[in-house]
Amino acid sequence: MFQKVLIANRGEIALRVLRACKELGIQTVVVHSTADTDAMHVRLADEAVCIGPPPSRDSYLNIHQIVAACEITGADAVHPGYGFLSENAKFADILAAHNITFIGPSGDHIRMMGDKIEAKRTAKRLGIPVVPGSDGAVTEESEARRIAGEIGYPVIIKASAGGGGRGMKVARSEAELEVALATARSEAGAAFGDDAVYIEKYLEKPRHIELQVFGDGAGKGVHFGERDCSLQRRHQKVWEEALSPALNEAERERIGTICANAVAELGYSGAGTIEFLYENGEFYFIEMNTRLQVEHPITEAITGVDLVHEQIRVASGGGLSVTQKDIRFQGHAIECRINAEDPRTFMPSPGTITHFHTPGGLGIRVDSGVYSGYRIPPYYDSLIGKLIVHGRNRVECMMRLRRALDEFVVDGINTTLPLFRDLVGNHDIADGNYDIHWLEKYLAKGE
Amino acid sequence: MFQKVLIANRGEIALRVLRACKELGIQTVVVHSTADTDAMHVRLADEAVCIGPPPSRDSYLNIHQIVAACEITGADAVHPGYGFLSENAKFADILAAHNITFIGPSGDHIRMMGDKIEAKRTAKRLGIPVVPGSDGAVTEESEARRIAGEIGYPVIIKASAGGGGRGMKVARSEAELEVALATARSEAGAAFGDDAVYIEKYLEKPRHIELQVFGDGAGKGVHFGERDCSLQRRHQKVWEEALSPALNEAERERIGTICANAVAELGYSGAGTIEFLYENGEFYFIEMNTRLQVEHPITEAITGVDLVHEQIRVASGGGLSVTQKDIRFQGHAIECRINAEDPRTFMPSPGTITHFHTPGGLGIRVDSGVYSGYRIPPYYDSLIGKLIVHGRNRVECMMRLRRALDEFVVDGINTTLPLFRDLVGNHDIADGNYDIHWLEKYLAKGE
Repeated sequence: MFQKVLIANRGEIALRVLRACKELGIQTVVVHSTADTDAMHVRLADEAVCIGPPPSRDSYLNIHQIVAACEITGADAVHPGYGFLSENAKFADILAAHNITFIGPSGDHIRMMGDKIEAKRTAKRLGIPVVPGSDGAVTEESEARRIAGEIGYPVIIKASAGGGGRGMKVARSEAELEVALATARSEAGAAFGDDAVYIEKYLEKPRHIELQVFGDGAGKGVHFGERDCSLQRRHQKVWEEALSPALNEAERERIGTICANAVAELGYSGAGTIEFLYENGEFYFIEMNTRLQVEHPITEAITGVDLVHEQIRVASGGGLSVTQKDIRFQGHAIECRINAEDPRTFMPSPGTITHFHTPGGLGIRVDSGVYSGYRIPPYYDSLIGKLIVHGRNRVECMMRLRRALDEFVVDGINTTLPLFRDLVGNHDIADGNYDIHWLEKYLAKGE
Repeated sequence: MFQKVLIANRGEIALRVLRACKELGIQTVVVHSTADTDAMHVRLADEAVCIGPPPSRDSYLNIHQIVAACEITGADAVHPGYGFLSENAKFADILAAHNITFIGPSGDHIRMMGDKIEAKRTAKRLGIPVVPGSDGAVTEESEARRIAGEIGYPVIIKASAGGGGRGMKVARSEAELEVALATARSEAGAAFGDDAVYIEKYLEKPRHIELQVFGDGAGKGVHFGERDCSLQRRHQKVWEEALSPALNEAERERIGTICANAVAELGYSGAGTIEFLYENGEFYFIEMNTRLQVEHPITEAITGVDLVHEQIRVASGGGLSVTQKDIRFQGHAIECRINAEDPRTFMPSPGTITHFHTPGGLGIRVDSGVYSGYRIPPYYDSLIGKLIVHGRNRVECMMRLRRALDEFVVDGINTTLPLFRDLVGNHDIADGNYDIHWLEKYLAKGE
């Protein structure tokens, strides 16, 4: 087991990882920017190293400074959290070269899944169902027209290097294809410095279903069931559930086995998430995230397994604490991402939290790095906390979520709590009847 | 199901019951003293009725005022929480006479178990193992000597009407018997207005093991496993665990079945706890509490069942949501009772909580009615919160508890948090190797 882990992140996930290290008896080092000196995880860590000012490129993205912090403090491993350097293959490689363990997969696996075209090719090879589309980048309009004709309209054009919705365009007919292709390429070039795009079948009302997987790096793979993250705004997840209200046991078993076998065959090490669109009983691979997800706690709620413990165990060579047959699903869990944003306009609302009071009682978990009197710096994303609710079934979970939202107090700033108080009373949500477009439509109606 | 429940209690348990009502969609009324106007449950309730000033006899124990509050607000049921009127048979009878449901057992069952001698007789009749001793009250020294001779020294003399340690005396030999008898009778008379005492075999190093039971009032009974509440100070529980580290599966099964059958045979309705001393594989009935216990959340943690939901379901005629075979035990849970007390002297420490920050993350539950800025009134017991930690096994639970205690911040007053931070690092506690005297001895050594 590691002696000392450096946590290369901030906010709730830095605290999340710190908790896991403390529970495992591992010393902790946190690196932080000058804007995060008062953060809770900085207060609770055994050691803290300031690595520069905001913005992130001068601190949380500064590989040189982070490696220096490891060497100064004698950390033998780094947990990257999510975002920042968590899917940066170069970072993983540099740590390896310095004999420091990166708590995550190998640089090669990160690289493989970071290139969307390569990822899709790999998925196909591993028997993971993919969306029909171009096998690689498409540059000529004539080629785009041929492929779109084969798979049928509507189609979507996506940046090869992309993510987060930038460089994505839908074409519903051949007439729309030329403009969509040009716009996508130009956006991709501007956003990622690479204008390569590819074409896929566009699904009308899919759900976003993702499989939590783990590899032990020695050829074993398991899955921890799925999460349904269909409720999104501008491709950002807002509300997540485990298990999905849409899947049946046979579908779960089938896709879970495919994903577990895939990570096993890859020799993948650590936590990963294989994301799918799901429509009419079919799964279509989107991408694989080679890191912990924001929404991992709902999987922990229904399995009882601490996924950060498992990451640390696997990275230290201790293997997984569970086999596939130990992983059983108990009840239902929902996570709401509470952002410091105006609940109507979604404009960031930084400032000082004058009063922060979290709900308690059975089945309630709050993951948050903020506290009464905490000043939210304006430089980072707006997530200030996650409310995770577990119940014996989805109905109990929803009842519990409703009362927990009523109890949650965040004074001094705007938050998205009012949005969740609306959603929990909505009939479609109660019925589990929503797709990836539902929330955008709902928000458009409300305004 | 009830339309409106009145909560006849205060503090964390009032909030606990309020949460359950909200989750079940039931309107809530709280009654409160003039000292509790700022309590969190008063703020969150649908309606609040002030029923008088402190001390409790002028408000929380004033049956007339509480019944009036029911009639004014149209409440159709009352949840009594624990303490106060929760085991007052007259209160249950008066509510019944007013056609208001008491969420608890019948007045007759409360009465039966409230009289310690009658309770023991009933237990014996129902096949529950009891401590050998006098069958009823003992007044003559000669009779006491004869019984003590039969069961063997040491013996303990206890007040028939008693509880909480008052009127209890141990005699380790015939020479000590006369003084012990006289002292116990005199203390019992002073404390309870009734000097009847009885004699029992005294166990040297027993554990306190209690079975959570439920009756549906129609002849069905179940048990939810045991809790180990051996860590006590002056007969007050301090730290509780479920399941007990001392019991094996066969012992659990045997005593659980006896208890479930007993409540079934009684036709008992609602939640109850059958308390035992446990030594050398044998159980000895102490008493049955005919109400919810402070430590019920550890049972909820390992079973996933909300016991207050079950109380409300049973009282409203809806029956239990589970059968015995649905009740399975997952992992291990520990509760620490956090009191506003000096951690060395245990003197109450009322005052204003300037900062209250609860731990979060996987497996952590906090039940508390206080918040940052809350002024603790000096009139009531000193419990300000319960930290309940759940893990896949006892080792994981203890690791998690340790880190949660590190995160818990209560500024402005003294609390017993430092005691728990000591206990969680103790070898005997780590090994589960303690009896009902352990904590007193530990505290005596530390001073």
